Amino acid sequence: MGLVVQKYGGSSVADAESVKRVARRIVDAKKAGNDVCVVVSAMGDSTDELIDLARQISPLPPARELDMLLTAGERISMAVLAMAIANLGHEARSFTGSQAGVITDSVHGKARIIDVTPGRIRGALTDGAIAIVAGFQGVSQDTKDITTLGRGGSDTTAVALGAALGADACEIYTDVDGVFTADPRIVPTARRLKRISSEEMLEMAASGAKVLHLRCVEYARRFGLPVHVRSSFSQNEGTWVIDTASMGAEGENVEQPIISGVAHDRSEAKITVVGVADQPGKAAQIFEAVAAAEINLDMIVQNVSAAATGRTDVSFTLPKTDVQTAMTALTKVQEQIGFDALRFDDQIGKVSLIGAGMRSHPGVSAQFFKALAEAGVNIEMISTSEIRISVVTRADAVDDAVRAVHTAFGLDSEGGEAVVYGGTGR
Amino acid sequence: MGLVVQKYGGSSVADAESVKRVARRIVDAKKAGNDVCVVVSAMGDSTDELIDLARQISPLPPARELDMLLTAGERISMAVLAMAIANLGHEARSFTGSQAGVITDSVHGKARIIDVTPGRIRGALTDGAIAIVAGFQGVSQDTKDITTLGRGGSDTTAVALGAALGADACEIYTDVDGVFTADPRIVPTARRLKRISSEEMLEMAASGAKVLHLRCVEYARRFGLPVHVRSSFSQNEGTWVIDTASMGAEGENVEQPIISGVAHDRSEAKITVVGVADQPGKAAQIFEAVAAAEINLDMIVQNVSAAATGRTDVSFTLPKTDVQTAMTALTKVQEQIGFDALRFDDQIGKVSLIGAGMRSHPGVSAQFFKALAEAGVNIEMISTSEIRISVVTRADAVDDAVRAVHTAFGLDSEGGEAVVYGGTGR
Repeated sequence: MGLVVQKYGGSSVADAESVKRVARRIVDAKKAGNDVCVVVSAMGDSTDELIDLARQISPLPPARELDMLLTAGERISMAVLAMAIANLGHEARSFTGSQAGVITDSVHGKARIIDVTPGRIRGALTDGAIAIVAGFQGVSQDTKDITTLGRGGSDTTAVALGAALGADACEIYTDVDGVFTADPRIVPTARRLKRISSEEMLEMAASGAKVLHLRCVEYARRFGLPVHVRSSFSQNEGTWVIDTASMGAEGENVEQPIISGVAHDRSEAKITVVGVADQPGKAAQIFEAVAAAEINLDMIVQNVSAAATGRTDVSFTLPKTDVQTAMTALTKVQEQIGFDALRFDDQIGKVSLIGAGMRSHPGVSAQFFKALAEAGVNIEMISTSEIRISVVTRADAVDDAVRAVHTAFGLDSEGGEAVVYGGTGR
Repeated sequence: MGLVVQKYGGSSVADAESVKRVARRIVDAKKAGNDVCVVVSAMGDSTDELIDLARQISPLPPARELDMLLTAGERISMAVLAMAIANLGHEARSFTGSQAGVITDSVHGKARIIDVTPGRIRGALTDGAIAIVAGFQGVSQDTKDITTLGRGGSDTTAVALGAALGADACEIYTDVDGVFTADPRIVPTARRLKRISSEEMLEMAASGAKVLHLRCVEYARRFGLPVHVRSSFSQNEGTWVIDTASMGAEGENVEQPIISGVAHDRSEAKITVVGVADQPGKAAQIFEAVAAAEINLDMIVQNVSAAATGRTDVSFTLPKTDVQTAMTALTKVQEQIGFDALRFDDQIGKVSLIGAGMRSHPGVSAQFFKALAEAGVNIEMISTSEIRISVVTRADAVDDAVRAVHTAFGLDSEGGEAVVYGGTGR
């Protein structure tokens, strides 16, 4: 039929039995007439176990060596998956990221894919074999050292390989049934989306929805590769992430919901640079120092300067895991920039409302803030895009905020209003 | 001072604490002014655990994938060892077998090293870093697939790298104090040898002494690389394995003991090909079939043919792990060769006496057989070299045989006679 890239996450290959189950699923796709390339993550919690081992050895392991260590995880899962497929009478060949031609930059721990040269994968597929590729890893162009793409990087590997191979689709198998209007652990009435535009999925992923890795969605969008997010534990259809252009006939588009979902994120922290001189260029100096440390900021707020002192505070949010690096980088330039102190706060959370429809429907923000106010949620920072509104709140207010917004926009599966903008919520 | 290659086995890096201890030892060698290249095995029992995992997946995993799986073990140990060294303030860089330039043939599971091109290792050493290399693994010249060298292959990696780098010495760290006159678990009075010729060490290893891998000794001998076998748990001197040529002044050589030690092996089995026509070329056909299956035979015995039938039996010993493959290979050519049946026996053991001195001292065999006879040990097969006599016995007679021979040749550390040939034992 065609060429399909399938990606199985760690929970789908947690033990020997799961590996065998996944092997049957892969062989089914092969039997259906497809060329099959599989990307696999490390088994179950094995990556966490390797990180624990590293922590026992060193409080601050060198990033190059941590990457070397962690890539052992997929090496194990891909080899046993190939064995399980061989046991079903089909040929499978496993390949490391390096062997599969996943070329990255040299930023250990969160390398970016520069190029994919999947000559060996093509060779295996031409020979009629199923290719199994280690997710999450690559080899650096300059130093030929082993790199990792960061948590969730296997999704990116799958989509990048799919694009390089010219695959017809990329199936991302996970332990949930697809993309939901909110995290079902927080909102039991959350509904699965049959499809979502890659644009909205991008905002969902950037806002903390863990089902797909942000860079994976970016990649899929850039190459126009349809992605099917589905459960490896059932045969149910999942969620198709597709180009807006291919979202179907206009009639269908009219019925597209205005709001796709509510995402939340408790993985960020806030750093405040206290007492910055309110002069042009000071903020730039701060963000240059942070950028030089390869840290991606999320939201930024600059307070109104106190007239008496001519000084102001600049706050920004960033992944908790980058706080240490950012604080170190900023401390180095404290004298040069001339600020008083650094503060950090790791008890924050972010709640985001995403929907392509809000572009053409004014008033969505008003209803969003109203829902939060009614739920007694205090807002600390705000940021918006054309199709997203996000707020930072206290971490312990996130669940209430998500539920309130989900209900207010009629996203609840039972008793929810039709998803037509203008409702008053409930 | 020079360039030293150190090899640490799995028991020396069994857990985080052991890894830190080994790291201190490596840093000590570096601080003493040496360039240091370290070869490391997988941590503790991790290789066995990976094999168990493979068995849960498939009764007969493809050899290519088994190699891919097992090489994850050293990837973990080398990365954490590099982390532990970094934690002591020294730079260490880990390299896979492939990155270290260990080029092998394509025989998965027991590949042979064809070439070593350690450009990246030289680069690391030139930069002042400690190089950590994964033992036991390489990359095949033809297919660029990952290979393993077989059990104990890390010793071979160390010596091959030492030879390619022009190292001054290769230190093999293990969990025993060196090479003993017999296995101390069987003979509590066994003594550590201060040194042994590579020729004798070769025979010891081939006869089942597990302290050094056979191919490692071959390699060291071919390249004239001195090997120091010692414990990673103490600072004691171990055993030097050196060229006969460099065994020192003649005066010293005179005092060399005639007998170096007694080795034993319970890892072999015996296959008997029953009812082979007693014609020229028949034995050759049998051994060609076995050799084509990449199996190394050890001893071979052909019975005197029964005059009435003109048919004979041919028996040979081989590693137990190869029995299945050998039986399959022989069954395939049964019709062509024309034999009646195959029998196998896995309850055999081998006892060997090794000593360069027996070359010039006739009568050693007589005393060896006398000691075995007095201990009531029945002999099933015999083979000899210039410096070794081996017998096959029942597996359960091995311990008695080893003790009897050890005592008869005055090797016991307490109350033993001076090691001068001609003694009557005790």
